[in-house]
Amino acid sequence: MKIYDWPTGPYPARVRIALAEKNLRSHVQFVLVDLYKGEHKKPEFLAKNYSGTLPVLELEDGTFIGECTAITEYLDALDGAPTLTGRTPREKGVVHMMSKRAELELLDPISVYFHHATPGLGPHVEIYQNPEWGLRQRDKALKGMHYFDGILKQQPFVAGEAFTMADITIIGGLIFAGLVKVPVPAECEALSAWYARMQERPSVKNRITMSEPARAS
Amino acid sequence: MKIYDWPTGPYPARVRIALAEKNLRSHVQFVLVDLYKGEHKKPEFLAKNYSGTLPVLELEDGTFIGECTAITEYLDALDGAPTLTGRTPREKGVVHMMSKRAELELLDPISVYFHHATPGLGPHVEIYQNPEWGLRQRDKALKGMHYFDGILKQQPFVAGEAFTMADITIIGGLIFAGLVKVPVPAECEALSAWYARMQERPSVKNRITMSEPARAS
Repeated sequence: MKIYDWPTGPYPARVRIALAEKNLRSHVQFVLVDLYKGEHKKPEFLAKNYSGTLPVLELEDGTFIGECTAITEYLDALDGAPTLTGRTPREKGVVHMMSKRAELELLDPISVYFHHATPGLGPHVEIYQNPEWGLRQRDKALKGMHYFDGILKQQPFVAGEAFTMADITIIGGLIFAGLVKVPVPAECEALSAWYARMQERPSVKNRITMSEPARAS
Repeated sequence: MKIYDWPTGPYPARVRIALAEKNLRSHVQFVLVDLYKGEHKKPEFLAKNYSGTLPVLELEDGTFIGECTAITEYLDALDGAPTLTGRTPREKGVVHMMSKRAELELLDPISVYFHHATPGLGPHVEIYQNPEWGLRQRDKALKGMHYFDGILKQQPFVAGEAFTMADITIIGGLIFAGLVKVPVPAECEALSAWYARMQERPSVKNRITMSEPARAS
């Protein structure tokens, strides 16, 4: 398998963490796509992923799978343990809900803030910006942090009693929030304590150094 | 099971269609949440779904599952055939990718257009609007229609050879596009032909009349 990747990117981090949790990283070759050169918006890459986003998984048969949730579903279905997307119907429902909620309320709003209300990837890539929308999304993400803080006051992981894809999505959100200097509010103690625990996991701690990506040909 | 619902809503339609395809509709009681009164933004409903969106599934044990993909995963895991979210790892990956792409490139942009560049649900509900962003999203959805038209020139269903959750997501997108008068461009013949075929399916054709919702207590 190949993963089209940008090692420090928050969305690529989600798949890097999932690969390490599943102990599948040795099966993968990373291929670098330079976001700051806008390589992800060029026709050659758009043919692999219409949405122009990283990461993308390429299977041996040439199939391209974009979107972190889809890639995680693929990896989880390859191999049983540990399960990142739930085992029972209820677990699957709750994990998918909380991971989507983590995208909607935290990770994606931080991404919109970055691309619309900061210089983002620079003027060559950020051809259209809507700063007012970007600032609204930053505020939405801060509200989302308070929501997830409330969840983590009640349970050890985002979707309940076990580490899942939903935790990984919030980790992606807080990695991105750190990069764009939108810190977790001081009063969100449960969220901060959870994040400190998450950063001790080898899958999170070693996600960037886990292998050097090859250059895109 | 209960489904918090608005019968003509494009997102609720996704779960109504999934229930009918899975032959599970007799297991569900619908509970009406009046979008035009903003009932989905009131604290009582937000306690069920922080994101304030429909539909929401309530299980017998009191668990609430929001987000159409999460509800569909739950329903699909309850019962094996027909499968809406894929059977093999590759199928699961492709179905989830195409369904997410259908949200990102068509359904969600049409929703943003409705809420930001039209009167939407009215001034009581649409407290903040960003019309410029809404119009950009309408244009994104039109571009998305051309992309999916290209896909449907090559294969009978959105994710390949079988009807899946990804078809349902595009159906939701085209239902919403119809409501807000953003028609499928005439040149998108494969998309239009596929949509005409989809509307012949009983799950799609009878989705609104399939049962009368109870009033929220």
